[in-house]
Amino acid sequence: MGHMINQLKDLFSPESIAIIGVSATSNVFGGSSFLKRLQEVEFPGRLYPVNPKAVEIQGLRAYPDLTSLPETPDLAIVCISARFVPDLLLECVKTGLKNIHILSSGFKEMGTPEGIELEERIAEIARQNGLSIVGPNCMGLYCPASKLTAWGGIPGVSGTVGIISQSGGITQRLTEYLSSLAVGVSKAVSVGNATVLDVVDYLELFGDDPSIDVIAIYLEDIHNGRKLLERVQAINSVKPIIILKGGSSDAGARTIASHTGAMGGNEQIWNAFFRQTGVVRVQAVDEWADAIIALNLLPPPDGDGVFLAGGGGGVMTISSDICHIEGLTVPQLSEQTMLALQEVIPGTGSIAGNPLDSFEIFYNPSHLCQVANIITKDPSVSMFVVDRLISRKAFHLPDLPDQTDEIIERLQSVNKSLPTIITVDTDGGDALLGQEGIDMRRRFHHASIPAYPSSARAIRALRHYSHYHKKRIID
Amino acid sequence: MGHMINQLKDLFSPESIAIIGVSATSNVFGGSSFLKRLQEVEFPGRLYPVNPKAVEIQGLRAYPDLTSLPETPDLAIVCISARFVPDLLLECVKTGLKNIHILSSGFKEMGTPEGIELEERIAEIARQNGLSIVGPNCMGLYCPASKLTAWGGIPGVSGTVGIISQSGGITQRLTEYLSSLAVGVSKAVSVGNATVLDVVDYLELFGDDPSIDVIAIYLEDIHNGRKLLERVQAINSVKPIIILKGGSSDAGARTIASHTGAMGGNEQIWNAFFRQTGVVRVQAVDEWADAIIALNLLPPPDGDGVFLAGGGGGVMTISSDICHIEGLTVPQLSEQTMLALQEVIPGTGSIAGNPLDSFEIFYNPSHLCQVANIITKDPSVSMFVVDRLISRKAFHLPDLPDQTDEIIERLQSVNKSLPTIITVDTDGGDALLGQEGIDMRRRFHHASIPAYPSSARAIRALRHYSHYHKKRIID
Repeated sequence: MGHMINQLKDLFSPESIAIIGVSATSNVFGGSSFLKRLQEVEFPGRLYPVNPKAVEIQGLRAYPDLTSLPETPDLAIVCISARFVPDLLLECVKTGLKNIHILSSGFKEMGTPEGIELEERIAEIARQNGLSIVGPNCMGLYCPASKLTAWGGIPGVSGTVGIISQSGGITQRLTEYLSSLAVGVSKAVSVGNATVLDVVDYLELFGDDPSIDVIAIYLEDIHNGRKLLERVQAINSVKPIIILKGGSSDAGARTIASHTGAMGGNEQIWNAFFRQTGVVRVQAVDEWADAIIALNLLPPPDGDGVFLAGGGGGVMTISSDICHIEGLTVPQLSEQTMLALQEVIPGTGSIAGNPLDSFEIFYNPSHLCQVANIITKDPSVSMFVVDRLISRKAFHLPDLPDQTDEIIERLQSVNKSLPTIITVDTDGGDALLGQEGIDMRRRFHHASIPAYPSSARAIRALRHYSHYHKKRIID
Repeated sequence: MGHMINQLKDLFSPESIAIIGVSATSNVFGGSSFLKRLQEVEFPGRLYPVNPKAVEIQGLRAYPDLTSLPETPDLAIVCISARFVPDLLLECVKTGLKNIHILSSGFKEMGTPEGIELEERIAEIARQNGLSIVGPNCMGLYCPASKLTAWGGIPGVSGTVGIISQSGGITQRLTEYLSSLAVGVSKAVSVGNATVLDVVDYLELFGDDPSIDVIAIYLEDIHNGRKLLERVQAINSVKPIIILKGGSSDAGARTIASHTGAMGGNEQIWNAFFRQTGVVRVQAVDEWADAIIALNLLPPPDGDGVFLAGGGGGVMTISSDICHIEGLTVPQLSEQTMLALQEVIPGTGSIAGNPLDSFEIFYNPSHLCQVANIITKDPSVSMFVVDRLISRKAFHLPDLPDQTDEIIERLQSVNKSLPTIITVDTDGGDALLGQEGIDMRRRFHHASIPAYPSSARAIRALRHYSHYHKKRIID
């Protein structure tokens, strides 16, 4: 795989791309859509639409075939019918083109003898000629640093997340979630049928890639389980791997069979896999994004105690309960901390300490900072969750100016090493609130403070983050 | 309680309200804030601010005390210091005022001998004089039909949900969630210390109230567990009760102690309570709102099989897995149904049937309708989940006109009795998409089709809905 790794690196940073199978009349699906997206993001390299019947496509000169191109492109995106793909690969070999993404479907996943045979044929051509093939039957590659962003209108925010996925739709969705929330993606790949390059190949590449800190994987099936387990174990001890495994149910496995033609595998084997590797396992796409954000933005905690602060006894009670359900500890504070807190909490009522119910946290950043200053000295506290820094219509709060910047500045001045997350509750049907909340979340993320739209989601993300680091300490 | 029930009904529909303790200079907190909100929603009855030092407050004539009012108001909202409350209650007795909401805190929840004594005193006055007291230490009453909406700027959408809660913040938040999503609330009450009227009293009232179909309760502690259990059991067999129980963790119980001065109770006892009553139990506020929406809008299912339809193999695989985790069945379809589906699904690939992966469902309402028509005839299908009827930036979809109205019309023409829910995925940081999604969710709700922002939330809600009706069938 050594030489392959170098070739794979080039996959994500082509300076010239040939797109084979571009309609001259529509730019909605397939090759023409890829071309259009690359033009929209102003791909800085050379783009070569290939279509034997066209002279010009979307303002670019079109070429009848690969041999007529003025150079050997770094990457080919193949969007022609499956039955023509083997011949096209031979043309690639002839021109020295090594990196090929096959978008086309119509192979093994069809479940037909013809499909299976076609797929075996492309595997054979690739093996004989050292081709790096992404796919077939997949959305392929995404790398905003090289403007390789041909997937819809995803904001091309560069970051340090790597995504490997056996589903194009899910890769695109996760990439969009993260990018739009200012937690950028470094590289993403939808692997499709993984005929030549499989999940383990990309995992090795991402494991070695210094621009990737966190790796997210959507897995349906795997051919080489032992190798995957070894690589996951080794890489996870250096950078967190978060896996969404599809097909744990009968109906899920049925879908996989019709989707990629593979078997989802035995759930017991997968349970053992997760136990042995200690990687973070998630079950839904929103949960996945939330866990990635926490693991990507936060430094490791120095223990497992959570301090919860916010306004409203009921809400703080529920948040404490959710911590308990998620296996997180909400410790009692030291006497010293309690005395210090009592001094800054207005009113003479009794306080639980942790969680801390202080309505002033909603509207007074300096109060929040005082609290943070106090609890950062308590040895039982290793993580800090601030609930709901936004005023909702339902509350008797005065209209407040946006205090996000002040909060960020103050929190950072207190203790940069205390992992802190924020809940910006925007649930319900208030569109304006939703917009405000998204804007706040983005700004918190820029300051490396994960921010979530509900406390249940915040705490679930914290659980995954805490689980990962605990595992690493124990190992 | 018979005479009390009648008196309680009046609590929610006062034609005149005295607000005692209204600042003449600020309208941000306490009594003045309640007055301001009632004026904003154009409360149609008479409002009497009481303040011995003011002549006019917020454009209304102010009165020095209750005896100087031109009539005996139907409701008093008491916002004065706790130590003055007993005397005020005696003044109420003198003028014949029976229904009193005490906003003021400073009673039992303080944990001080003075607080406890004050609370006992008001209990005694109420008992001796037949007063209906809401609170103290609570946000009190909400009833949009009588424009009794003094809680912040909650949209006053009338509906058929009743809310009883031991936390003001949570009552307000849930009321706002539901109202802003066009699933209105009939009556809500934040019960506070429940010195006189407790959760069971309101539950009996809501159980008898023909304008309430679903009852949501946030519980922290309870004095009369046996009575609660009996009433919950009886009422739940007629209208669904959905309970969020706070204080299941040690830290949660600590919070309750500091919040209302009560003990949260033993978790084992509560587990037995939920087992015996079969009521729906939720753990977080968003989960609560989601379950209420499903139980409020959908007719009962005739079985427990879920049919899932949407676009993208990965997404459908994950949705199937989540159904399995949530205890829902995704059955294999009959041969007849499979044949019929194969006719309308484009392409020649194999299909799993259930879940159904058909991208056309996203952009072609007539195709969705064809599918609905087919599966409605399959006896194994009792619930229908349509995934993601909105196009995201991440996808190569053309810009589509909003098809919500057409989808609603078509779905309703197929089979009104097949419970159907929709996922409108708006997660991530795209504010415009969020706004569009909220607007769609509202319109689906108007048509009695629950709509959720992620498939995980949709399926969790469906689980609660299915659990409730299954329990009823078994009982």
